[in-house]
Amino acid sequence: MFDVIAFDADDTLWHCERDFQAVHESFLGLLSAFHEREWIEARLLETERRNLGTFGYGVKGFVISMIETAVELTEGRVTGQEIQRIVDWGKGMVHGPVETLPGVAETLETLAKSHKLMVITKGDLFDQESKVARSGLGGHFSAVEVVSEKTEAAYRAVLARHRVHPDRFLMVGNSLKSDILPVRGLGARAVHVPYPLTWALERVEGVSPATHGYQVLESLADLPGFLQTT
Amino acid sequence: MFDVIAFDADDTLWHCERDFQAVHESFLGLLSAFHEREWIEARLLETERRNLGTFGYGVKGFVISMIETAVELTEGRVTGQEIQRIVDWGKGMVHGPVETLPGVAETLETLAKSHKLMVITKGDLFDQESKVARSGLGGHFSAVEVVSEKTEAAYRAVLARHRVHPDRFLMVGNSLKSDILPVRGLGARAVHVPYPLTWALERVEGVSPATHGYQVLESLADLPGFLQTT
Repeated sequence: MFDVIAFDADDTLWHCERDFQAVHESFLGLLSAFHEREWIEARLLETERRNLGTFGYGVKGFVISMIETAVELTEGRVTGQEIQRIVDWGKGMVHGPVETLPGVAETLETLAKSHKLMVITKGDLFDQESKVARSGLGGHFSAVEVVSEKTEAAYRAVLARHRVHPDRFLMVGNSLKSDILPVRGLGARAVHVPYPLTWALERVEGVSPATHGYQVLESLADLPGFLQTT
Repeated sequence: MFDVIAFDADDTLWHCERDFQAVHESFLGLLSAFHEREWIEARLLETERRNLGTFGYGVKGFVISMIETAVELTEGRVTGQEIQRIVDWGKGMVHGPVETLPGVAETLETLAKSHKLMVITKGDLFDQESKVARSGLGGHFSAVEVVSEKTEAAYRAVLARHRVHPDRFLMVGNSLKSDILPVRGLGARAVHVPYPLTWALERVEGVSPATHGYQVLESLADLPGFLQTT
């Protein structure tokens, strides 16, 4: 039924937001002598939102946003050592292990026998290629596409480049905003596999399978069974 | 003679290293009360080299490397305001105008009539796409390929993706290391258009047209004439 099944990467194939939130917690701790938790969170989110148009997604932009927020919230009193700790958290994120989600490796191995599989992920090219390599999953994919933003136009360009008709394309991912809505906008099929954590800037309201015609699976491991029933 | 002519972007189509070096100068000024110029330069270069494997190429990694160097060379005494200045230099680089090199727009317009043109650039996806857009040159290119490192394997993958045989491919760029040597390694043709400045980590020794069989042109504007003679 599908020529290509494409997967989002972060929080679909492997844990990611969990690691961002762990660093987030450390950051709140770093500034806890200066401000309330809620205020620090609000300022960091505001800085991240503002910096998206300058630095895009990914660890490097997150590091720079934390540094700016620390300077702002300490009125410049943050020390060099504290700034270095923030940079080191970023390095830890980049070099840390990539932990795949349960059942992912087996599912990809099964599906690769019958379908062309692809990764479509947004963010930092260097970071995403490195994660694909470290995950050990790279061999299952015939293409890894990193886009700077997952818009309908970005998906249209990827499909055109691979000569796939939207009717023959299935996208699988954890983000309604990035993996489901733009793909449904193209008229292609999409399967939502929720992850327990969602970054504030990825949240959307008023979207459901009923309103937007996508499927929800609890785990990627349910995908082969789902494909047999469609 | 060629099906595809591909161009490097930074310092081939538009100025780039000039802007990095201007920020570099500001950085030397920021730390001039602490150290000699040569020592600051050596430490920054060392930090950049070490961080390449963590953060890759581009403005964001450069900003983080400057911050780390400032912390190190001031033994943590760099102030929050000074850190913020470094971040702001990075933002200025990202949002500043993209100034194309002389004759580039006209040359691309001419060549686009007879050839499929492409950009192959390394570095930060977000940053490079933004520069293509701001340059106003995007319409001349049938593809913009951003790779994390310009290796022979990376060029081979791009050529395979676009179904171009190395015999029918010409690469044009300012970096011997990134634009000429790996392309010659594939057996494809390459034209070197030097830029007056070369980043220390892009320099190579012992490479000449005689040893590596590439052409040198003084300006991109000489390319149509060169193509008529080959």
